[in-house]
Order: sequence, then C-alpha cells, then structure tokens
Amino acid sequence: MLATTPESEYGSWVLAGVLLTLVVVYMASKLGGELSKRLNLPPVLGELVGGVIVGVSALHLLVFPETGATAIDSLLMTSLQQLGNLDAEAVSHIFASQSEVISVLAELGVIVLLFEIGLESDLRELGKVGYQAAIVAVVGVAAPFLLGTVGLVMLFGVPVIPAVFAGAALTATSIGITSKVLSELGQLKSTEGQIIVGAAVIDDVLGIIVLAVVASLAKTGEVDLLNVVYLIVSASAFLLGSIFLGKFFNSSFAAIAAKLQTRGALLIPAITFAFVMAFLANVIHLEAILGAFAAGLVLDETDQRKELDQQVMPIADLLVPIFFVTVGAKADLGVLNPAVPENRAGLIIAAFLIFIAIIGKVITGWAVFGKPGINRLAVGVGMIPRGEVGLVFAGIGSASGVLDKPLEAAIIMMVILTTFLAPPLLQLTLKGQATPTVEEAALPLAD
Amino acid sequence: MLATTPESEYGSWVLAGVLLTLVVVYMASKLGGELSKRLNLPPVLGELVGGVIVGVSALHLLVFPETGATAIDSLLMTSLQQLGNLDAEAVSHIFASQSEVISVLAELGVIVLLFEIGLESDLRELGKVGYQAAIVAVVGVAAPFLLGTVGLVMLFGVPVIPAVFAGAALTATSIGITSKVLSELGQLKSTEGQIIVGAAVIDDVLGIIVLAVVASLAKTGEVDLLNVVYLIVSASAFLLGSIFLGKFFNSSFAAIAAKLQTRGALLIPAITFAFVMAFLANVIHLEAILGAFAAGLVLDETDQRKELDQQVMPIADLLVPIFFVTVGAKADLGVLNPAVPENRAGLIIAAFLIFIAIIGKVITGWAVFGKPGINRLAVGVGMIPRGEVGLVFAGIGSASGVLDKPLEAAIIMMVILTTFLAPPLLQLTLKGQATPTVEEAALPLAD
Repeated sequence: MLATTPESEYGSWVLAGVLLTLVVVYMASKLGGELSKRLNLPPVLGELVGGVIVGVSALHLLVFPETGATAIDSLLMTSLQQLGNLDAEAVSHIFASQSEVISVLAELGVIVLLFEIGLESDLRELGKVGYQAAIVAVVGVAAPFLLGTVGLVMLFGVPVIPAVFAGAALTATSIGITSKVLSELGQLKSTEGQIIVGAAVIDDVLGIIVLAVVASLAKTGEVDLLNVVYLIVSASAFLLGSIFLGKFFNSSFAAIAAKLQTRGALLIPAITFAFVMAFLANVIHLEAILGAFAAGLVLDETDQRKELDQQVMPIADLLVPIFFVTVGAKADLGVLNPAVPENRAGLIIAAFLIFIAIIGKVITGWAVFGKPGINRLAVGVGMIPRGEVGLVFAGIGSASGVLDKPLEAAIIMMVILTTFLAPPLLQLTLKGQATPTVEEAALPLAD
Repeated sequence: MLATTPESEYGSWVLAGVLLTLVVVYMASKLGGELSKRLNLPPVLGELVGGVIVGVSALHLLVFPETGATAIDSLLMTSLQQLGNLDAEAVSHIFASQSEVISVLAELGVIVLLFEIGLESDLRELGKVGYQAAIVAVVGVAAPFLLGTVGLVMLFGVPVIPAVFAGAALTATSIGITSKVLSELGQLKSTEGQIIVGAAVIDDVLGIIVLAVVASLAKTGEVDLLNVVYLIVSASAFLLGSIFLGKFFNSSFAAIAAKLQTRGALLIPAITFAFVMAFLANVIHLEAILGAFAAGLVLDETDQRKELDQQVMPIADLLVPIFFVTVGAKADLGVLNPAVPENRAGLIIAAFLIFIAIIGKVITGWAVFGKPGINRLAVGVGMIPRGEVGLVFAGIGSASGVLDKPLEAAIIMMVILTTFLAPPLLQLTLKGQATPTVEEAALPLAD
C-alpha cells in the first residue's frame, strides 16, 4: 500500500487487473459450467471451454506470457490502458504482475482441489486397491510410451530422441481433471474411482521420473541415473512417510485445533499443514499437488473432517475455477486449424498420437485383477486426460529445441483433445453404473 | 505450468516462496492472535504484533521491496536460495514475484474483510446514524488536520507545505482495524459500532480527497480544484448510486443464484459482484475496499444472507490474516529506537503528533447529537487507528520529497502507535458496555 518505489506506483492498477481477470474467470467458469450441466455434461468441461473462449484461442481477455503473449495481445490490458491512460511500459509491468498473480492463484487452486480430493479419499479404501492402482499406473505409462515412441520412429520416421520425448508426453494423467469429474458424478468413493485416483497419483510420480529422464536425455544425450534413483527414492519416501506419520500427526492436529479460540481454529491449521506438505513436495522436486493430496489423505481420518470439508468447500469454489479456466485459456486451438498449411503435417501425427493416447490408457482397465464385476472401461477412460502435465512436456521439449514445430503442435493437440474428451467419455462409461448412494450424492464435491 | 520462457523458469520456486510465506503468515497470525486472546486483548492486535515479529523489525522472514528490502534481506529468500542452489538473479526475480503475489493477496484480504463487514452492517441501522457518522467523520478530519498543521508550524517551526502534509496524514482512519475489533467484541451492530463504521467509511472518502489536495499541493504548489470536485462528485455518486441500485440488484442477484446448479451457486455471484464493485471503485480513483463494502451492504438484504455469511467466513479466515500480518511486517519499529541519534528529533515531533492524533479523534465522540446515553469515548477511540491509510500519506510524502527524514519518521511512529494502541483502548472503553445479545455474540465475525 506504500507508494514510494516505482514498482508499487502501478500497485492499484495491478489490483484492478487482478480483480477484472477474476471477474472474467468467474463469468467464464459459471457460464460454461452451467451450460455444460444443462447439456448433461460434466461442469468442469464447461469451465475448460469457458477458458478457451476467454483465452488465447478466441476473445483474448485472458492470455499469458508463457504462450508468447504481450500486454497488447490482452484485450483486458488494453482496456485498462485506455481506462487509466497508462503508457506502454506501465501496462507491460501490470500485465507481467497480473499474469504472475493469476498463475499462482491457479496453482493454489489445484493445490486446494487435491487437498479436498485427499480429504474425501479414504486411506483404507485406497489401500485396498493399492496394487490395482499401481498396475494401472505402470501399464498406463509403459503402453502409451512404447506404442507412441516405436510408432513415431517406424511409421513417421521421427528421430529417436524427439520420438522418446513425444512418447513421454503420452504417459501423463491429469489427476485434477479426472478427480473433479469423478466427484461431480459422485463416483469418487466407488472402487473404480479409488483405483483411478490412486493410479493418477502414482502416474504423477512416474511422470516426474519419466520427465527427468527425457529432459536429461534431451540435454546431454544420456540418462542421469543418479537423478532417477533420487527421484524414485524421494517420491516413495515422501508418500509413504506422510501416510505413516499421518496417525501421529492426526492426533496432534486435533489437539491443536481444539485449543485454538480465535477464528479459523480448524481451517488455518489444516490449510497450513497442506501448504507445508505442498512446499515440501515442491522443494524435493515432486509436484506441490502431491503434497496437498497427501495432507488431505492424512487429515481424512480426523474427527472434525465433516466440519473441515464444509470450510474447505467455499475456498475450493473460489480458487479451483481459476485453475480450470486458466488451463482452457492457455490451450491454443489455433493448432487444430487445418486451413493453416503448417498445421497439416502436425495433424496427421496428432491423429496417431491421439489414437495411442486413448488406446494406451483404455487398456489399463484390463490390467486390473482380483476385482470381478469392475467397470474396466471406466477405469481406462478415467486415465485419458493429459491436462497441464502433458503441456509441461510440450513446453520443455519446445524450450530445449528437441521438438520440431509439427511434432510440438501434435503433442499440444493430443493434450487438448484428451483433456476435453475425457470428461464426457467418463460420464458416458459410468452411466450404466449403479446410482450413487445418498451418502455419496451428498458429498460436498458433487454438484 | 508451461516452462518455455525465462520468466516461468522459476515458476515452481515462486510457488514455493508463496507457500512458505503463507505458512509463516498463518503461524504468526495464529500465535499472535491466540496469545492476544489469552491476555484478553483483541486477536487482531496479536496478528499485527505477529507480523512485526516476522517482518522488517525483527526476524526478517517477511519483508517487502516497498520498504527498501531486497532478496538478500529476506531470510525466507536466502533459505530458498540454499535449498534450491539458486543464483542471485533467480532469487531476486522470485523475491519480486512473491512480494507482488503476497501484496495482492493481502489486498484481496482487506477487500473480503470489508465485504464481510458490509454484509454484517445493516443499511437501515446505518441510515439511522447517517448524520451522526457524517459529523464524526468531518470533525475527525478537520480537528486533527488543523491542530496538527498549526501546531507543527507554531511550535516546531515546520514550513507550511510539510506541515500540511503531516496534518493530512493525521486525518485517516483505518476502517479495517476498527471494524475487525468491533466485530471481535460483538459490538459491530451496536449504535456506537454503526456510527464508527459509517464515519470510517466517510472518513476514507474524505481521506482520498485530502490526499489528492495535498499531493497536488506538494507537486505544483497549488491545489487542483477540478480534481477535488471530481473526487467529491464521483465518491458521492458511487456510494449513493450503489445503495440506490441495491434494491434492484438484490432481486436479480437472488434470481441468478437460484438458477445456478453447479458448485458455488451463491458464493461466486456474490464474490464476483464484490470484485466488480471493488474494481469500479478502484478505477474511479476511490479505494477498492469502499466498493467491496458497498457490495456487502447491498447484498446484506438478500434472503440467503446467513448462508452467504457462512461461506464467506472461511475465505475471510484464509485471506484476512495475510492483510494484518503484512501491515505488521511492513511497520519498521526501528524508527522508535531512541538510541539512534537520527530518531531523536523525530521522537519529539512524534510525541506531539501522537497526542494530536488521539485527542483530535477522541473529541469526535462529543460531536454526536441526538443519541443520549451513547458511549462517546468509545466512538472517539474507535476512530483512532490510522493503519495502512496513514502509511500511504507517509509514503507519498517521502516519494515527493516534501517530508524531511525526522518528520517522515514521526508520521510513521504516529501511524504505528495509533494502530497498535486502538484495539486495546477500544476494548477498554467498551468494557462497561452491556453484554452483547446472544444474536450479536453469534455473529460470524465474533470469535
């Protein structure tokens, strides 16, 4: 609030930019979500589409420097510029700050989402399907990677290193999108739901390891084995350690919350714990969302869970849409336009990648053993969306110069299509499923 | 999440920095707030003190570029640097981004706080004390301004322009701190509480006008009358217009909320409305918090107010502490140290300013007419805290070169002391007050 340095000179305009962006985000998420719901589709699909409409593909209200946009590409920024009679330098500073703030808010959104999913997941139920989830995750990483890499080399004559990179991008699963759809359908606690969530978590860990491998391969031409071992050990230690320590923490958490007398006595210790875990996961080079999920899983066994659920809900309602709308806004559907000649080479490769992306994950359902009567198709379909994780691969590949333009565009198309197709497909495959019980239907996450 | 540009290269470290900062903020606010509560003091005082302890005055965990700090002054950043083996340039980028994000979160915090206060204020009750509030505000601006300016010129030989500036800094009232203490004491809906809140809102508007006057005086040596007229007209039009349009909006808000079927059906339209109003207030050069307060006031009459209150509460619990801890963290208590020779000249002027700051506001209680039996002392004491508004004056004065070092230090001391003294004083003066009714005691804001 002090106005002494040049940086804070624009302070009130940065706030104005953030407020206006949030208004656009909420409008897009509500219009999209509601329309989707009326069409009997998962609301999160509508939020993604709402993001596409306000984003780089259409209205240009919400664009980000990461996709190459500058302040003058943002309709929102040029409006602010006219409103405030600001010069170009000021607007470009405001644009950078606003993008940074919205990106962090989106990341906090997916952290809160995974914390909420963790709270709603049952550690014992998850334990019961642990082996199945692990098999699904391993098959879901190995199959698309091998099929994709070999196919690109054999059918399209792609050199080995870019082919390995594209294959790696096929391995990701977006736990955010899948778990949101599951909870919207009230299926988060079904056996299928728990297998999918468990497998998506393990997949996230495997994905980080695969990424480390291919990134070092791209950079040096060889694999840094020590780093791979480090990642495997730290990831396993983190997840198992947090679950193991969970029981101990749970009782001390309850004791702390019971002693506090000021506002937020339950919420603030819980959120602080989630942020600490997210931070720890982040600094040991895992993803922050894994830490938040582990935190939710641990607190799941707390007596005050219901009350905590109720308080986390409005926070999720506020922050989670920022994440999904941002994912949609960053997806440049321009790469899908066949009228642009450069896109055509990419389109053919993309068709192949999308085919592998779907087949490679759908078959994971048949890797499940010892669970007769399970909806195998639903498990496989639940693993399809690549979401933001797939985009990280494309981004790193593009930055390191390994991927040529058509292959990069093909990966982005694959990510976009799997992300947008998964929610309706998952709803379709779960339609035959028994109606969720009353308890499930009343889950806070279900609409 | 894309990692293609240099800016986002540090993306995950910016997130790590924000997460760690939030953990520090919540620890400080809870430890301070709880301790304060045990000592029978208002929790918000403890949050401010908690902020001081982690801030620039003590632990240096939470420092901001506005107070002249760089990345190496931040203990939190140097820890991140060691954890991540980052170079100086990376850390300075992460520090800038993290400071920007935390500052915006703090501003969103005070926006949500004022929205909540607006929701809990009763427009009709506020209307009943409208004249009294206006008198209190006008006296509370005129008295400290005249006493301060004349006193500085006559007693200390300060030149007229800096004296006017210091006098102007005496006029502010921090609505955030006062209203938080009132609601913590369950006194927000008392006659005294409503007069204080109403007067603080009007004071905020008057403060903006005074600021515009002295800023143009400092810059050009004369007063831009057109700008002053513009501010008076726009502020009145905004507040009266939003209240006038409130009834119309209220019914359409209820209709929209009733039609939505996805999550956050009530919360998201309400928050969007608050953000739109905050944005509008911001772009017409008022303060964002005035817009949020007006939004809360309008929605106060909605049927679903109770439900909305319940959902806004956890969001306030999450964001509001960021504001108070930040205010504390930015307050440099070093200026209070008499062992430093440069501080001594400032300390004498400060003693005078603090005396005027308290007397000039306390007398406003006796300006209230037609309300026999009112606690006049409590009304006056409620207007004492200058908070962040006073710091804005000091910041602008320092940036424009009008204030010399001792006078600037004296203003900052006055702001710090009035801010920290007001909560316990207000609690003391309200102690004789009738115990709040059950309904008041159950107000969401009361602890």
